[in-house]
Amino acid sequence: MESVDKEKLCLLSDKEQKLRCDKVKANMSKSGVDGLLVSDNADVYYLTGRVFSGYVYISIDSDEPCYAVKRPCHLASERMVMIRKPEEMVRMFEGESAIRPPRRMALEMGSLSYNAVTRLMKIFPDVVFADATPVMSAARAVKTDDEIAKIRFSGIKHRHLYERIPHLYQEGMRDIELQVEIEREARLEGCLGQFRVSGDDMELFMGNVLVGENADNPSPYDFAMGGAGMDPSLPVGADGTIIKPGVSVMVDVNGNFTGYMTDMTRCFAVEPLPGRACRAHRLSIDICAELARMGRPGVEAKALYERALEMATEAGMAEFFMGHRQHAGFVGHGVGIEINELPVIAPRSRDILAAGNVIAIEPKFVIPGVGAVGIENTYRVTDSGPMERLTDAPEEIIYFD
Amino acid sequence: MESVDKEKLCLLSDKEQKLRCDKVKANMSKSGVDGLLVSDNADVYYLTGRVFSGYVYISIDSDEPCYAVKRPCHLASERMVMIRKPEEMVRMFEGESAIRPPRRMALEMGSLSYNAVTRLMKIFPDVVFADATPVMSAARAVKTDDEIAKIRFSGIKHRHLYERIPHLYQEGMRDIELQVEIEREARLEGCLGQFRVSGDDMELFMGNVLVGENADNPSPYDFAMGGAGMDPSLPVGADGTIIKPGVSVMVDVNGNFTGYMTDMTRCFAVEPLPGRACRAHRLSIDICAELARMGRPGVEAKALYERALEMATEAGMAEFFMGHRQHAGFVGHGVGIEINELPVIAPRSRDILAAGNVIAIEPKFVIPGVGAVGIENTYRVTDSGPMERLTDAPEEIIYFD
Repeated sequence: MESVDKEKLCLLSDKEQKLRCDKVKANMSKSGVDGLLVSDNADVYYLTGRVFSGYVYISIDSDEPCYAVKRPCHLASERMVMIRKPEEMVRMFEGESAIRPPRRMALEMGSLSYNAVTRLMKIFPDVVFADATPVMSAARAVKTDDEIAKIRFSGIKHRHLYERIPHLYQEGMRDIELQVEIEREARLEGCLGQFRVSGDDMELFMGNVLVGENADNPSPYDFAMGGAGMDPSLPVGADGTIIKPGVSVMVDVNGNFTGYMTDMTRCFAVEPLPGRACRAHRLSIDICAELARMGRPGVEAKALYERALEMATEAGMAEFFMGHRQHAGFVGHGVGIEINELPVIAPRSRDILAAGNVIAIEPKFVIPGVGAVGIENTYRVTDSGPMERLTDAPEEIIYFD
Repeated sequence: MESVDKEKLCLLSDKEQKLRCDKVKANMSKSGVDGLLVSDNADVYYLTGRVFSGYVYISIDSDEPCYAVKRPCHLASERMVMIRKPEEMVRMFEGESAIRPPRRMALEMGSLSYNAVTRLMKIFPDVVFADATPVMSAARAVKTDDEIAKIRFSGIKHRHLYERIPHLYQEGMRDIELQVEIEREARLEGCLGQFRVSGDDMELFMGNVLVGENADNPSPYDFAMGGAGMDPSLPVGADGTIIKPGVSVMVDVNGNFTGYMTDMTRCFAVEPLPGRACRAHRLSIDICAELARMGRPGVEAKALYERALEMATEAGMAEFFMGHRQHAGFVGHGVGIEINELPVIAPRSRDILAAGNVIAIEPKFVIPGVGAVGIENTYRVTDSGPMERLTDAPEEIIYFD
């Protein structure tokens, strides 16, 4: 056998883990399940403070989760079994210190593959199954104070990064060259790089730098903005456009400094942009401020979208709102361990804002001939007042040195 | 409606697309399915030369695929329907120019979520379903000449990158600092960054730089080597270790320059390493050469693993082979659009090598007190001779300037 110094599996304090599990259990009750089994990296990280390969099981009548661990080999917990394959997990439910098997168990049907879920179903032949994805999403949408602290720290780092962007520009640079220098600064600042997205469809490397007309190239991904990208295998973002006077440079780069992300966009330019672009940028700042005022517990997420669209329409900017050749169908989204959490700020969203939600608001405009303008901030929904901004870099268009 | 300049959907030549579809159809026949529907980005890219959001449908009795496209909005094809949701895809099978509905249809059960697959199943109530994942994996495992050309080009770029690594080192650097400079050079060389992995479990940002004892930190991921990482949310790779004389610096960084990856590892050091580490590194080079000689069409993948383990055992190095505190269960893997394709070079692999396979061989050793040594190369299985090396950087330990 391998001899290994063991390390405590759960990196959360007992209190913090209980807080998170209690939120999950409250949602389990609503869904009528008495057991929940997760293995998606984001969910495992949420429940234990670390990523491992294996499973976290929560029983509705137990204070603490149990674990089935494949890798790494050096984790230790009293409530843990080591397994080589999922079928060995049944040992959690056998023997003296066994936990009670569930009657109705939730599995991550929205993130695990069909084959992975059906394999798990076969392991528990007498169990009725439900979807754990909405249970976990709802719990994760309302951040704890510890999570807020991590997001707040990412926001500070993120701002430091953005403050240095004007100094990275050199005359004649291409979008991708500026992006590479931003990526380097981000990584030296402590950005982990990894951009966690829920679902299989969305891909992005580190972030998006959009210069001029490239912002109007439609992309396959469900991001707010597009861009042709450098290669048809990853058709989003920078495409080699040279940065020139008169075009906008929109920077929307990864803020994952802690395992929890902030999402922030700022616009840069070589010299002042045409009036319409400046007005659209100002409008974006105004929409952010307005939505921050509106965003309180109990408010419908779709009301924020409607208000943003209304302001864009009143300003005669609707045709440029959230894209021009192709439009995105939302103006904001929850953010945390993954970039696309709940609530969704979109016309048909049924989400209701709650204290502890962390939401990125990104009212952006694509102005033909100029490019993308507007900003994005990450906000915290507070107990009663307006939303608190966690990405407090200056919002105006920033001119390169 | 949005007015958009249209662009031909398929970026492959007709001949190349037919070649790939014919391989898929041959595997469909073996699986007894007459229709195959894919939407995973890697499979869509394989069949069309670009990533889009939507579906590619292959009918066994049709020469060309059909498409259902959600985004982007500017694609054009005679065999395409635009859809907002999967249910609208049924229009492909209706009307004058309709294609015949399948009796048995393969869906990507290994990569699509349970919810995505069951939603598709409901759209086609009279159809029997099978798994498209092995069908696509088998087709993609045998590369066409066009794919080999892309991989070959990535290999050249990858070598250029590695040639510059010795110049990036500065005395007193931490592993992560060296990694950031390598990442920057890679991106400026044209690396797309994105590291496509099949399955939900594996995550890595751009690559792995392992210095000294950190190589012996077990990781949750199924990579050959581990490392503690900078944060428990992404526990793999560099952990902030300072590069000093006497420790190894293993660099295994992303070679995705074309949508197709090469996988290459080289070892660096400040000054000559202890004898045991040098012997293990030499052994790794010898194993690569031996496996390259063995690797011909018809050879069992597991025979390559067995030979590698045999050579490690004969040299008294088995306890350090593919890890020390934790061991990886393979010595190589197919590579292409994703980093973990077929064939798998592992003890229980049932894969048989075929001409056109592209395989990364990575016999690595973790030597206590020194770190990780050994190399990794990407090879092409030729029609008859030994495997051709596509990552032809020097293999010896490279000393920093």
